[in-house]
Amino acid sequence: MATIPKNEIQGRIAALQSRMTNGETPLDGVIIVQYADLYYFAGTVQTAHLLVPASGEPRLLVRKVLERAQADSPLADIQGLSSMRQLQEHVEELCGPAPWRLGMELDVLPATSLAFYEKLLGSASFTDASPEIMDLRSVKSDWELDQIRDAAVLNDAVYKELPQVLKPGMSTIDLQATLDAFMYRAGGLGLTRFRGLNLECSPGVIVSGPNGAIPGHSQFPIGGKGPHPAYPQGGDRDPIVPDTPIICDYLSNTTGYFCDQTRMAVLGEMPQEALRILDCTAQVLRHIESLLKPGAVPETVYESAVAAATDAGIVEGFMGPPGYNAGFVAHGVGLEVNEYPILAPRMRQPLVAGNVVAVEPKVTHPQYGVVGLENTYVVTDSGPQRLSAAPEDIIAVAA
Amino acid sequence: MATIPKNEIQGRIAALQSRMTNGETPLDGVIIVQYADLYYFAGTVQTAHLLVPASGEPRLLVRKVLERAQADSPLADIQGLSSMRQLQEHVEELCGPAPWRLGMELDVLPATSLAFYEKLLGSASFTDASPEIMDLRSVKSDWELDQIRDAAVLNDAVYKELPQVLKPGMSTIDLQATLDAFMYRAGGLGLTRFRGLNLECSPGVIVSGPNGAIPGHSQFPIGGKGPHPAYPQGGDRDPIVPDTPIICDYLSNTTGYFCDQTRMAVLGEMPQEALRILDCTAQVLRHIESLLKPGAVPETVYESAVAAATDAGIVEGFMGPPGYNAGFVAHGVGLEVNEYPILAPRMRQPLVAGNVVAVEPKVTHPQYGVVGLENTYVVTDSGPQRLSAAPEDIIAVAA
Repeated sequence: MATIPKNEIQGRIAALQSRMTNGETPLDGVIIVQYADLYYFAGTVQTAHLLVPASGEPRLLVRKVLERAQADSPLADIQGLSSMRQLQEHVEELCGPAPWRLGMELDVLPATSLAFYEKLLGSASFTDASPEIMDLRSVKSDWELDQIRDAAVLNDAVYKELPQVLKPGMSTIDLQATLDAFMYRAGGLGLTRFRGLNLECSPGVIVSGPNGAIPGHSQFPIGGKGPHPAYPQGGDRDPIVPDTPIICDYLSNTTGYFCDQTRMAVLGEMPQEALRILDCTAQVLRHIESLLKPGAVPETVYESAVAAATDAGIVEGFMGPPGYNAGFVAHGVGLEVNEYPILAPRMRQPLVAGNVVAVEPKVTHPQYGVVGLENTYVVTDSGPQRLSAAPEDIIAVAA
Repeated sequence: MATIPKNEIQGRIAALQSRMTNGETPLDGVIIVQYADLYYFAGTVQTAHLLVPASGEPRLLVRKVLERAQADSPLADIQGLSSMRQLQEHVEELCGPAPWRLGMELDVLPATSLAFYEKLLGSASFTDASPEIMDLRSVKSDWELDQIRDAAVLNDAVYKELPQVLKPGMSTIDLQATLDAFMYRAGGLGLTRFRGLNLECSPGVIVSGPNGAIPGHSQFPIGGKGPHPAYPQGGDRDPIVPDTPIICDYLSNTTGYFCDQTRMAVLGEMPQEALRILDCTAQVLRHIESLLKPGAVPETVYESAVAAATDAGIVEGFMGPPGYNAGFVAHGVGLEVNEYPILAPRMRQPLVAGNVVAVEPKVTHPQYGVVGLENTYVVTDSGPQRLSAAPEDIIAVAA
């Protein structure tokens, strides 16, 4: 299994440094502590601080586990950090004399942690480095695309397994438990990573019928009743009703990078009206594909997708039940599931080659649950290239 | 499935209000947004703000999903919040005229979110409400203990299932995938909740042999190689070696509340030296049990446990490999897995009746991985009562 090559890491660090120097507010350094960002810039996931000065070599300061960080990371300067009080000396050494303007990941760093660093590094002012970090991470290299393709092979395998394990009498939780276990055994990493507070999601989300139409707690286009009010989202324990759409949304991950894909299944036969809705979501998906080009404005693509859904007659329930619309038709995906770009209102930064988006036109229907499709694409100069690999056909099993 | 009874919620709100009035810095109100805390104080998990004034009825302001919040929560005053700009009016109405001293969960609220609320509520100063919240949550009611007992029945079922599914040639990931799926199907909620950044853990953690002795990224007493450097903790894909200890740590959760338990398994026979270590951890566990009384000082119990481990000859590797000691022998458990009290150095607030702790004396051994036991207990006036239910015997399966 691949760890991140040295030239990838060097390019990422150089790009961050360029933004530190050329941004509106030049920074003396960025301190990275969040796992997905640490993995991106250092190639290791440990309790650590990655100190990136505006120029020169970055230094990885590891609280736990130094040996693993050294084995995993291609960085040259990796040291232990036995006390947090040593951090100031390292900042002085790499960023020059105080005072410093430092970036941290303030969109995920808890407020008390920021207060801790403000006290620890008395002569520093902090700004949020995450917008620049997430902007960098939104453009994938060829090596990163290969990681997502590897995850896509696993995701495809999940949908090949689905008809082998879907049986009459099963609940959506039964089915999800079975497929989650299959995916973990077959090479998945077992957990998901979303950026931000209160974002929790299993690798698989499977809902069906009226329970699936219940809105969930998050801004996801699939809600669901869930197993309990303490975890009110996703599948539930009622037996799946024959001839009722089953929507299966899977996040696969083999080397840190996610592929996101959704397909429809059914025990018995799909109702005619569900088939019509599914065909319409496929049309909308084709329409969005036709717009995924460098230079396209996400907001414009979103509006065009909603217009296409309206024309197709599926605007009612499009991207969520009435009143609880998810408000987007696609999201970036990479080391986390909620990355940029997001095809949504007010998102005006044009797409560029290398953006990876999970496009998921879905319709919530009071009787059917959720009906739709999702593929992961990379934006290229010659149009979108599909990374998710499973055929879009309905997976039907005898009831 | 139980949602939280009205009298529970009322008691919790009253206790929080009492602390807001009687604390060192009196607060005009507390705004709660984090899921575990929302579930604790409102009985629902939705994207919402729970506004608790220093006196009078709290108000739950729901961004998503109002109908589910109303169905799940016993609170009287539940309203939609269609725009964040309305928050100020609600604070004025419940907390009186500005300026306000407000508490929020600053240990988990991202720094940019705090800045957002500071701007939104210009006349408010914010303090961290989490120490008081977590202190309240550390004392469980009889109703809460019943929830943990319900989770304990499920946890016991996992260990009954284990010998049915453990087979030669399996990897620790195979075994964990199988048992995670079993637990989810049998009533588990499928996800874990830890408080804080970078804390990620599946319901089950299973490691064995030298791979299990590798320290992980977190302050857990079980590390493990994990499936990949992007997720460097827990089980891996190597076949489990016969006659080698397998440690199985499971978090079960049926209604939001966790029970935490660890048992040992083996394919074939446990080596003599591993048996000796396991006996010693059992002695240390008995010793800690004898100290779990109201009034006991966590730091003192910790030190006594380390002394007992030293006397028993298992201090090398006790609570983690050399250099990577977890630094505790027990942690509180409830709606999250990392609650108070923590039996660790510098923890001096005495135990009280109703504290629930997962006590986990474990020894990392370079050849065996990790050997030890874990039970969840409630502290009562007449000593500890064990909540986790599985027998402590080794689960042995023919190799």
